[in-house]
Amino acid sequence: MNAPRRYVAEFVGTALLLAVVVGSGIMGERLAGGNTAVALLANSLATGGGLVALILVFGPVSGAHFNPAVSLALAGSGRHAWADVPGYLLAQLAGGVAGVWMAHAMFGEPILQVSAKLRPGAALMFSEAVATFGLLTTIFGCVRHRQAAVPYAVAAYIVAAYWFTASTSFANPAVTVARALSNTFAGIRPQDAPGFIVAQLGGAALALMLERWLHAAPAPAAAPAGSGIAPPVETP
Amino acid sequence: MNAPRRYVAEFVGTALLLAVVVGSGIMGERLAGGNTAVALLANSLATGGGLVALILVFGPVSGAHFNPAVSLALAGSGRHAWADVPGYLLAQLAGGVAGVWMAHAMFGEPILQVSAKLRPGAALMFSEAVATFGLLTTIFGCVRHRQAAVPYAVAAYIVAAYWFTASTSFANPAVTVARALSNTFAGIRPQDAPGFIVAQLGGAALALMLERWLHAAPAPAAAPAGSGIAPPVETP
Amino acid sequence: MNAPRRYVAEFVGTALLLAVVVGSGIMGERLAGGNTAVALLANSLATGGGLVALILVFGPVSGAHFNPAVSLALAGSGRHAWADVPGYLLAQLAGGVAGVWMAHAMFGEPILQVSAKLRPGAALMFSEAVATFGLLTTIFGCVRHRQAAVPYAVAAYIVAAYWFTASTSFANPAVTVARALSNTFAGIRPQDAPGFIVAQLGGAALALMLERWLHAAPAPAAAPAGSGIAPPVETP
Amino acid sequence: MNAPRRYVAEFVGTALLLAVVVGSGIMGERLAGGNTAVALLANSLATGGGLVALILVFGPVSGAHFNPAVSLALAGSGRHAWADVPGYLLAQLAGGVAGVWMAHAMFGEPILQVSAKLRPGAALMFSEAVATFGLLTTIFGCVRHRQAAVPYAVAAYIVAAYWFTASTSFANPAVTVARALSNTFAGIRPQDAPGFIVAQLGGAALALMLERWLHAAPAPAAAPAGSGIAPPVETP
Repeated sequence: MNAPRRYVAEFVGTALLLAVVVGSGIMGERLAGGNTAVALLANSLATGGGLVALILVFGPVSGAHFNPAVSLALAGSGRHAWADVPGYLLAQLAGGVAGVWMAHAMFGEPILQVSAKLRPGAALMFSEAVATFGLLTTIFGCVRHRQAAVPYAVAAYIVAAYWFTASTSFANPAVTVARALSNTFAGIRPQDAPGFIVAQLGGAALALMLERWLHAAPAPAAAPAGSGIAPPVETP
Repeated sequence: MNAPRRYVAEFVGTALLLAVVVGSGIMGERLAGGNTAVALLANSLATGGGLVALILVFGPVSGAHFNPAVSLALAGSGRHAWADVPGYLLAQLAGGVAGVWMAHAMFGEPILQVSAKLRPGAALMFSEAVATFGLLTTIFGCVRHRQAAVPYAVAAYIVAAYWFTASTSFANPAVTVARALSNTFAGIRPQDAPGFIVAQLGGAALALMLERWLHAAPAPAAAPAGSGIAPPVETP
Repeated sequence: MNAPRRYVAEFVGTALLLAVVVGSGIMGERLAGGNTAVALLANSLATGGGLVALILVFGPVSGAHFNPAVSLALAGSGRHAWADVPGYLLAQLAGGVAGVWMAHAMFGEPILQVSAKLRPGAALMFSEAVATFGLLTTIFGCVRHRQAAVPYAVAAYIVAAYWFTASTSFANPAVTVARALSNTFAGIRPQDAPGFIVAQLGGAALALMLERWLHAAPAPAAAPAGSGIAPPVETP
Repeated sequence: MNAPRRYVAEFVGTALLLAVVVGSGIMGERLAGGNTAVALLANSLATGGGLVALILVFGPVSGAHFNPAVSLALAGSGRHAWADVPGYLLAQLAGGVAGVWMAHAMFGEPILQVSAKLRPGAALMFSEAVATFGLLTTIFGCVRHRQAAVPYAVAAYIVAAYWFTASTSFANPAVTVARALSNTFAGIRPQDAPGFIVAQLGGAALALMLERWLHAAPAPAAAPAGSGIAPPVETP
C-alpha cells in the first residue's frame, strides 16, 4: 500500500517539476523579446519556486527525490532502500515525460516533440558533473544537519546552478531524458543526452565520496520527521 | 463576534492581494518598455512577496484563504466548516473587487473598467486546471505536514505558476471575477472568465481526490497553532 | 546605557537601509540602459535583501523600526515605550541622512544634493497611505502571531509594495526626508515630501485601528525573545 | 583528523562559491545582450542562492567562512581559534583560485587568465569598506541572536550589496585575489586588488568595534549546534 503511494508521489512531483521547467522556458522565451538572459531569469526563478513547493509537499511522502541520481546516491549512502530504487526510477522517468507533455498541452504546442537543441561537448559535460556534485553535496549536507532546510537549500542551489554552469544545470537523468522530448527553450538533442547522464552520475558519485570522507562515523540513526529529501517517512 | 473578524480578514487580505496583482501588473507594463517578460517578472515576484506577507498576517485570523477554490476544497476535506463558506466567498469576492478599484485609484486609472484582454481557448483552461491542482496540492501537503511553511510554499508555487502555465495562473475564482473588472496587464475579458472558473474548480476537485488517496487514514487531530491556510484559529 | 545602544542601532540600521535604497537605485539606473522596470527590479530586490539582514541583526537590539511611522504605531498599540520615541525618531532621521550621503560617496556623486524628482498628486498620496497601512498591518500581524517571521514578512511586503503602489512605497517618514536629499533614481522633490508623510501617518493610524478591532482582547503578555520588530529586547 | 575536514570544507565551499560568482557572471554577460543590469541581476541572485546552499551545507562542518575577513574577525571576537586561522586562509585562497578555474573550464574559457577589468579609486575602496562592515555586522548580529538564520541573512545581504555598493561588493580578500585571475564579468585588475583588500579589512575591523560596543558583556558561552557561520562544530 505504501510503496504505490510513494511511487505516485514521485510521479506527480516529477511531472509537475518538468511542467515547471519546460513551461516556464516556453513562456520566458515567448515573452522575452530575444533577451535570453531575461528568459533564463524567469526559467530559473520559476524552477526554484516550484522546487520549494514540491519538496515541501512530497518530501514527507516519498522523500521528494524526483531524480534518479538522488535516489541512487541516497541508496548508496544507506539512506534509501535499494529495493525501492527501481520503482522510483520508473516513476521519475514516466513523470518527467508526462510533465513535458503537460507543458506542451498548456502552451498549445504539439504534444510529441524531439529536441533539436545542441548541447554538445566536454565543457558542458564537465558542467553537468559539477552541477550534480553540488546538488548532491547540498542534499547530503542538509539531510545530515538541517533537514527542515532541504527544500530551500535545493531550490536556492538550483537557481544558482542554472547560471553558474554552462549547461544550465540539468543535474538529473530523468529530467535530461524528458527534456529531449521538447523542442523548446529547455530542450536537449537526444544524442547529447547520454553524455549529460554519464557526467551527472559521475558528479553524484564524487559527492558520495566526499560525504563519506567528511563523515566517516555513522549518521545519527533517527532523522527528524518531515524531512524533505530523505528516507521516505510513512504517513499515518 | 469571531465570524465577522474572519470575514473582515478575508476581505482585507483578498483586497490587498488583488491590489498587488493588478497594481504590480500596471507598474510593470508601464516601466518595462514593451518587454513583457520583464513586466511579468515584476508581477510574479511582487505577487509572491505579497502572498508571503498576507498569509503570515491573516493565516492565524481567518486561515488566509483569499480564494473560493481553497475554501471549498478545505471544506470538502473536512478542514473548514461548511457553514463558514458562504461568508468567506462573499468576503473574497467583495475584497477582490475592492482591491482592483484600489489599484486603479493608486495609478490614476478610471475606477470602473471592464477588461478587453483575450484569454480564450482550451489550452488556457487546461492551464488553469493544472495551476489550481498544483496550488491545492501544495496547500494540502503543507497543511498536513508543514503548517509553518504554508506562506512560503504558496508564494513560491505561485511565482512558478505565473510562468509555467500559459494562463499565468489565476487559480482563484474570486481573483478571476475581480480581474475581469480591470482593463490592464492582469485583466481578463468577462466572457473568458467562466471557462477559467470551471477549470479551476475541476483542478481543485482533482487535488482533493489525490489528497484523499494519498492519505486514506485520518489526519492528525490537532494541528499546530498559527497555521496559515488551515481551519481558522481563534485568537484571544 | 541601554538607550544609547538602541539609538545607535536605529541610527546604523536606518543608515544602511537608506544606503541600500539609494545606492541600488543609482546602480540600477546606471546599468539598466533606460529600462526602468529592470532598474526597479534591482532596487526592489536589493531593498528586500537588505531588510531581511538588517531586521535580523538589529531586531534583538532596538526592535529594528528604522521608521517613525513604525515607532509611533507600536507606541500607540502599547508595544513600545513613548519615552523612547523621540530618541528613535532622531536616530532614524539622522541615520537616513547619513545613509543617503554614504550612498553618494560610494558612487562618486556630490554628497549634498536636493532632489528635483516630481512625485506630486493625490494618487501618489493615496498610494503612500495604502503602502503604510499594508506595512503596519504586516508588522502588527506578525508581531502578534509569528515574531520569528517578521524579517521575511516585512522584506517580502516591501518588494511587493515597490511594484503595487504608484509611489514605489516609501512608507516611512524618515526615508522620505532622506530621499529628498538625493537627486537620483530614489529621490523625491522636497515640496512633495510633506504630502507623502501625512499620507503615511494616516495609513499607519488606519492599520492601528484595524489591529485594535481584530484583537479587542489584550495581546499575550510575554513575546518570545529575539523578536524582530517588537519592544526592544535587552541583550545581556 | 578534524582540522583537515574543516580545511577541506573551506576549500570546497570557497571553490563552489567562486564558481558561482564567476560562472554566473560569464553566463549573465553572454546572454544579457549588453544590458549590464540584467547580467548583474542574474549574477546577484545566483550568488545569493549559492550562499544559502553552501552555508547550510558547510556551516556545521567548518563554520562556512569562505572569507579571510570573516575568519579574522571571528577570531578577533573570540569566536574562532586563532590556531585555525592560517589553515583557513590557505584553504580559502586555494579554493577561490580552484573555483575560478572550474568556472573557466565549464564555460570553455582559457583556464589561466589575468583580469584587465579596471576597478580603481577611493569611491570603490570606500564601497568595499562599507560592504565588508555590513557583512560582518550581519554575521555578528545573527551569530549572537539568530544562528539558524545566518545562511539566509548573509545571502540576502550579499544580494543587496551587489547593488548598493559601487564596487558590487567583493567584501572578501580571497574572492578578490581569485577574481583577479579571471578576465570576465566578475574580474578585477591585479593592481586594484590591494586597495580592495585593505578596505575590506578596515570595514571588518570597524564591524568588530561596533559589535564590542553594542555587546560589552560576554556572549553566551554555548552556541546552539549547527550554527552556520560560527565556531566550527565537530561532527560525529
